[in-house]
Amino acid sequence: MSDTTEKSAAPGRIDFETAPERYRHWRITVNGPVAELILDVDENATLRPGYQLKLNSYDLGVDIELADAVQRLRFEHPGVKVVVLRSGKDRVFCAGANIRMLAASSHAHKVNFCKFTNETRFAMEDASAASGQRYLCVIQGTAAGGGYELALACDEIILADDGNSSVSLPELPLLAVLPGTGGLTRVTDKRKVRRDRADVLCTLEEGLKGKRAADWRVVDKIVPRSRMDAAVQEAAQRLAALSDRTDNALGIKLTPLDRTREGNTVQYSSLRVEIDRAGRRATLMILGPESSPPSDIEALQREGADFWPLRLSRELDDALLDLRANERDIGTLVFKSAGDPERVLAYDKFLEANATHWLAREILHQWKRVLKRIDLTSRSLVALAEPGSCFAGTLAEIVFACDRSFMLIGTEKGDNRAAAKMALSALNFDAYPMSNGLTRLATRFLGEPESVEAARATIGSTLDAEAAEDAGLVTIAYDSIDYDDEVRIFLEERASFSADGLTGLEVNLRFAGPETMETKVFGRLTAWQNWIFQRPNAIGPDGALKRYGSGVKADFDPERV
Amino acid sequence: MSDTTEKSAAPGRIDFETAPERYRHWRITVNGPVAELILDVDENATLRPGYQLKLNSYDLGVDIELADAVQRLRFEHPGVKVVVLRSGKDRVFCAGANIRMLAASSHAHKVNFCKFTNETRFAMEDASAASGQRYLCVIQGTAAGGGYELALACDEIILADDGNSSVSLPELPLLAVLPGTGGLTRVTDKRKVRRDRADVLCTLEEGLKGKRAADWRVVDKIVPRSRMDAAVQEAAQRLAALSDRTDNALGIKLTPLDRTREGNTVQYSSLRVEIDRAGRRATLMILGPESSPPSDIEALQREGADFWPLRLSRELDDALLDLRANERDIGTLVFKSAGDPERVLAYDKFLEANATHWLAREILHQWKRVLKRIDLTSRSLVALAEPGSCFAGTLAEIVFACDRSFMLIGTEKGDNRAAAKMALSALNFDAYPMSNGLTRLATRFLGEPESVEAARATIGSTLDAEAAEDAGLVTIAYDSIDYDDEVRIFLEERASFSADGLTGLEVNLRFAGPETMETKVFGRLTAWQNWIFQRPNAIGPDGALKRYGSGVKADFDPERV
Repeated sequence: MSDTTEKSAAPGRIDFETAPERYRHWRITVNGPVAELILDVDENATLRPGYQLKLNSYDLGVDIELADAVQRLRFEHPGVKVVVLRSGKDRVFCAGANIRMLAASSHAHKVNFCKFTNETRFAMEDASAASGQRYLCVIQGTAAGGGYELALACDEIILADDGNSSVSLPELPLLAVLPGTGGLTRVTDKRKVRRDRADVLCTLEEGLKGKRAADWRVVDKIVPRSRMDAAVQEAAQRLAALSDRTDNALGIKLTPLDRTREGNTVQYSSLRVEIDRAGRRATLMILGPESSPPSDIEALQREGADFWPLRLSRELDDALLDLRANERDIGTLVFKSAGDPERVLAYDKFLEANATHWLAREILHQWKRVLKRIDLTSRSLVALAEPGSCFAGTLAEIVFACDRSFMLIGTEKGDNRAAAKMALSALNFDAYPMSNGLTRLATRFLGEPESVEAARATIGSTLDAEAAEDAGLVTIAYDSIDYDDEVRIFLEERASFSADGLTGLEVNLRFAGPETMETKVFGRLTAWQNWIFQRPNAIGPDGALKRYGSGVKADFDPERV
Repeated sequence: MSDTTEKSAAPGRIDFETAPERYRHWRITVNGPVAELILDVDENATLRPGYQLKLNSYDLGVDIELADAVQRLRFEHPGVKVVVLRSGKDRVFCAGANIRMLAASSHAHKVNFCKFTNETRFAMEDASAASGQRYLCVIQGTAAGGGYELALACDEIILADDGNSSVSLPELPLLAVLPGTGGLTRVTDKRKVRRDRADVLCTLEEGLKGKRAADWRVVDKIVPRSRMDAAVQEAAQRLAALSDRTDNALGIKLTPLDRTREGNTVQYSSLRVEIDRAGRRATLMILGPESSPPSDIEALQREGADFWPLRLSRELDDALLDLRANERDIGTLVFKSAGDPERVLAYDKFLEANATHWLAREILHQWKRVLKRIDLTSRSLVALAEPGSCFAGTLAEIVFACDRSFMLIGTEKGDNRAAAKMALSALNFDAYPMSNGLTRLATRFLGEPESVEAARATIGSTLDAEAAEDAGLVTIAYDSIDYDDEVRIFLEERASFSADGLTGLEVNLRFAGPETMETKVFGRLTAWQNWIFQRPNAIGPDGALKRYGSGVKADFDPERV
């Protein structure tokens, strides 16, 4: 990204933290209940050398700013009810992901890039659905590929009817890949475009414009340029009227993360990440709250970004993104915790009691998103509940997000910390749905709904290791004689398996039950795109991605598999 | 396959037609309402040279026989209410897909093989759900990988409790690939095994046995060998009592297909396939019924496999499988039809009127499966409704299964056939759900349910090209001035796109709306498996598939993507 962000990261690392004053590609302006989010890409401010971001095309750096803007609009501008997303350039809305960047990227970077952009699109939809901050997209000029997919993540799309403005998904004809940022899924399942028309759209390099675009539901409305301002104002007012956001609420500032990196350790205020390169794993030690929750909502508002749950969620999110992008040989994430479970539960109670307040609501939804980010992280996830730990309530969700969990019965010799306990709160039963729409406990107990009820009945009590195992909340409990060996064997075994095989296995086992647009995008669309990203027709020396812009047509193997 | 089948196919072609008298790997014995389906693989009777089918492992040839057996049990043995699936070998149930075969296969063959085996597993589940022929799996010895996945497709699994019999999914630890025949999906979504336990199962080479296998729901029951016969009898009787199949019904014989291959033409009795290699497309010309439907159900029973809808469905199925396996450079399937639409509708009426009769019911479900086979065929599908065509009722489903459909308005000069018409029947509205559980019309009109009702209101009338286009039943109608050019341009354009890109695009656009185990298996699990089948950790020179059995461990790239 920009020079500014490079300072706080090791050289070459991708840093996911940014702030509006450092944006190179986006502008936010707020005017009462309406914000404008303007894409105006600085073509030279690229994340890596070797390409230019022409025509408002984007790389991961542009998307990191977008994710930050979406986040800040929710926390810093609670009065905003409608976000008008538009281009700062006259002739083009957005040309999508930069092709030269894609062509020059490793497979792993492409896949990671797509995952992050997808998460950001869903974050926009979450802002709308969960907290009434609606997105209105105004397209003047061309919206191609990822540009149109950005529009698809909005609630409404207004297209200029000027004979030039258009939407298109030219990935297949131009590059032999898929629209990989949810486009196919949103076209069929969100906008419910008829499949043969979707097929036309996705094979037509120049896309659709004017009346046909509106008739086929690929946009909501077409408007002549002369009437665009009035149409946008009308739509913004209409969408704002639907919002349940509080007027005149005071936002809180998302202050810079408290983060220092030294060798293989990243220390945040409530989280310590330690990387074991030889073991190919990272341990994420979550630190429970240092004090009791604030006395009331005004005190919460004063704490702002220092409020422990919010602070931890942002740190955890940053750590996950850092590990995904920058530590790709680290195959296993080990979650541990240290702190007082009662205090964690007290914070849960505080949030539950104030859930109708805009800020408490935002913090709950933020945790929902961070927990989803864990679910969607292509690494083996394991939780270790050990003496002194505090996997209670919201933090217990991390245990449920893991592929395996181990709990130590009692204490180990010479350790005077309290034996590990787990405890549930009301938040475990509705606040944090996974991508499949179910809570982690409902997904876990798909075959035995009575176990969800039994778990609910434990609210108010703490469970020792054996009780947690009996209740099905952890995979297995070991006493101190076996625990260390069993955990070690598990971690070594995990590191011995194929990284790709594990990725495929985990993504299939984590999301039992119903499917949603989110699981379709991350489970189905992404998998096909990853496959195509491996195929010579796309990435081979004669493939479309490599030959793009060379003037020489790609040479395809016609074999169908 | 065997020498016998090679005779009817061109050398090297895989032939999907077989019959019990030619089986090398399976035996069927019928005893009143209970049939036994016994897997006893002839290790030397392989589809291709270069491997042996040891330990009841299978290749596509074994699965072709299984698919045939499942089909014949429904049509030839209507009195069978329970199928007991077991091994003919004492120490092993089934070792799954043969690893040396997989290691030596091309990417395309692996993918095609998995698709067919998946379709066959769903055919077993369809026999149970749709026509009360339940599958009871008896495992004595080891059921590994695809062996356990075969069991998972059954209604119930009884495992011998003898300290030796076990079920396992060792694909990941052994081969760095996924259990690709629905195992992951059925473990989480059918048997609803808790996800961390599923993770244990899938990483444990030796699998599970005894009490833990039952407690974790990976099998339904464990029984000592001494009590196995009694337990199987009890379960068979219990399952038979649940069946709604008619006692004493007389089966019909599924006679050999009427099929001749000459050059690039395959001629069946009601279908002609013509391959245009230069254009990389095949035209499937469907021939409507030569006569009116039989007068009553007894006459249907006498016609048996000659009954036009049944005959055509079997021919179409065979043609699809042949094209998939043997014509992989043929990227587009063009569906045409010739015949009297009124006669097609008369057959639909006959089937609808007799839908409670076991044979009519079987024929409707057979069409349901063949239509799903079309949906799941990784080729571009296009329907051309031209003068003289008969895309009515059941045959109209083929139009709805296509990615695009073109209809000619009126007639072309010098052509005295009737202008193309479409017509719907009641069967279009419930008989043929897709894999997603919706009819093709409901999927097509996901965004406008009123269009489904408008389509239903047309039952009884015929629609000319413009009316069909207005009703949304075809993509576009052209008059004779434009039709030929537009179709030609479309076909040429389609052939110019990347084969892989099209595969990914089509599979994402075809299944809007809800997801089921079927769409999860074919959309999500398959895509991840295909991706892994491209990754060096599995298929590279140091990958697990290549090194299997060499005594040298695979060398994995630890990078996570």
